[in-house]
Amino acid sequence: MKKSITVILGDGIGPEVTEQSIKILNAVGEQFGHEFTYDYQLMGAVAIDETGNPLPDATIESALKTDAVLFGAIGHPKYDNDPSAKVRPEQGLLKLRSSLQLFANIRPVITYPALSHLSPLKPEKMEGVDFVIFRELTGGIYFGEKKINEEKTEASDLCSYTRPEIERIAHLAFQYAARPERRKKLTLVDKANVLETSRLWRKVVQDIAPSYPDIAVDYMFVDNAAMQIIVNPKQFDVVLTENMFGDIISDESSVLSGSLGLLPSSSVGTGTVLFEPIHGSYPQAAGKDIANPIGSILSAAMMLEHFQMNEEAALVRKAVAWTLAQGFVSQDIDNVNNYGTSVIGDLIKDFIEQKI
Amino acid sequence: MKKSITVILGDGIGPEVTEQSIKILNAVGEQFGHEFTYDYQLMGAVAIDETGNPLPDATIESALKTDAVLFGAIGHPKYDNDPSAKVRPEQGLLKLRSSLQLFANIRPVITYPALSHLSPLKPEKMEGVDFVIFRELTGGIYFGEKKINEEKTEASDLCSYTRPEIERIAHLAFQYAARPERRKKLTLVDKANVLETSRLWRKVVQDIAPSYPDIAVDYMFVDNAAMQIIVNPKQFDVVLTENMFGDIISDESSVLSGSLGLLPSSSVGTGTVLFEPIHGSYPQAAGKDIANPIGSILSAAMMLEHFQMNEEAALVRKAVAWTLAQGFVSQDIDNVNNYGTSVIGDLIKDFIEQKI
Ligand SMILES: [Mg+2]
Ligand SMILES: [Mg+2]
Repeated sequence: MKKSITVILGDGIGPEVTEQSIKILNAVGEQFGHEFTYDYQLMGAVAIDETGNPLPDATIESALKTDAVLFGAIGHPKYDNDPSAKVRPEQGLLKLRSSLQLFANIRPVITYPALSHLSPLKPEKMEGVDFVIFRELTGGIYFGEKKINEEKTEASDLCSYTRPEIERIAHLAFQYAARPERRKKLTLVDKANVLETSRLWRKVVQDIAPSYPDIAVDYMFVDNAAMQIIVNPKQFDVVLTENMFGDIISDESSVLSGSLGLLPSSSVGTGTVLFEPIHGSYPQAAGKDIANPIGSILSAAMMLEHFQMNEEAALVRKAVAWTLAQGFVSQDIDNVNNYGTSVIGDLIKDFIEQKI
Repeated sequence: MKKSITVILGDGIGPEVTEQSIKILNAVGEQFGHEFTYDYQLMGAVAIDETGNPLPDATIESALKTDAVLFGAIGHPKYDNDPSAKVRPEQGLLKLRSSLQLFANIRPVITYPALSHLSPLKPEKMEGVDFVIFRELTGGIYFGEKKINEEKTEASDLCSYTRPEIERIAHLAFQYAARPERRKKLTLVDKANVLETSRLWRKVVQDIAPSYPDIAVDYMFVDNAAMQIIVNPKQFDVVLTENMFGDIISDESSVLSGSLGLLPSSSVGTGTVLFEPIHGSYPQAAGKDIANPIGSILSAAMMLEHFQMNEEAALVRKAVAWTLAQGFVSQDIDNVNNYGTSVIGDLIKDFIEQKI
């Protein structure tokens, strides 16, 4: 198979972790007879420095016509600490999301027995934890009308949702829950005892559910979900929720694994899908070959899955699990015995090439 | 000192846990020369059964004129499972809250070294955890305008706040943070990078902060707070937040201790303050003398503090910590070696009376 990929290295550790993913994709391509082509494009602080624009048109054009976007990270302290800055790196990502109409953010919560000592939770709580959060990304209160009166004594934010906005992400989540490797359970997280928008979410999910007779659907209030993620995280399989609740519970869930450096994500829209690790640009570590490449490499594995290359994706995940189990880990995982970003990338590549 | 207390036993385990608190209050009264008088009133399923009304006027009248309300729990399965029920026990509590204009819910997150095995978190995460959440209770999106169009394809909820609504709870939280036993830190949890109401919260807190020069103020986004509560809960002292964020993070925080049965709360308004354990009516356990009375007893301790009886409150807390450390615990804490509700109440009473 031939696949074209827009590669956005971005800022900070973005380039060095993404480089490992390219290495892995090339090894997968060799092993399975695929041809991946890469179109490198700019976004973020590096794009501002080179073009004055955090998201040049060429990047959007590339992203719209390739089969997927692989993105590293953006953000640089020189913009964070300058309140007068008119353009900011983050604007690039926001604009790319809206250009690609990315309406669903998908975050697997992955745990590894070898890393259970890193989790804030007790090991028995972490056994068998494996769930995926589908967060709506373009609607809800974050994008609703905002008001403040002139005297600055009254403010409001409007949360609104339409049926089609809910349907499109709900179908994605149901389809994901129906995959052979999943446990066929979908949990809608809402606050339907109080919010009208939550009642609409619940109604839409109830209406759609009969089209997926194999999927067991349950409903959980967001305050209870915030507890259950700590008390009994293994109960979850696929979690579906609106934008703000998704922001809160996906960030809460992300710390279960013990390192943000391990976690991948994808953002799905009406066209090209974007894949990126959940971690930031971590500028202090840039260029030092100490960043954890696993978040990016597992994002590349999600991309392979998106290309219907399930066996390929499974092999990448197996290789990752092997490095972690063997203790070939970066500094964020083990401050004493650790390996460089590129060494970990090489080991995963060697595993894929069956040299190990 | 003389203090009058409206006692609302409520449903399920409400009566038996509240009875222990009365026992403790009487013991404290004897020891310190106070006179507590109790006006027993109805609310909840028991009130519906006896009067048809989940909150009879007599209860409101009593609550408005006494010095404090001590409340057990409400809710009964015969109403939960009957969708046609016109009156529900929970309506009683909602109406009492609005009658007393309870605008701030205060929840201490208390942990005991003796119970660290119950926490979902690793023991090293739990050491020294001791914080209090101030949740706004009458504003925000839960009470904002709700809309749904006729075709049921579009819904919305409005979140709004006014400066006075924020000021009154912010002052309470700052005053609490200034207490001698606190660590003089206040964390406002908001989403000011996105929401206009959050920016108003931040502005009001910034405006008020100079009046409390001893208090260090910091600001945390709610998604980050949801992580930090698990990753590093000991960083928090007093947490201030709006209604929905408070619902989510206070429920999340409540599971840290390992048993909801341990946790007290108070709700402060323009007049009489309400004290209640955070647990529900737990109808399956009603009348079996197995419920955990600590949540109610610690609520009574909060009431003593509200009466400026700090030494008295400290003694109750010391007695509670002693029973837990000695293993005099209820079934929810230890399924094998446990003690009855009333035995635990008696032991705490004996400790207060210096018989132990
Ligand atoms: Mg977030
Ligand atoms: Mg709640």
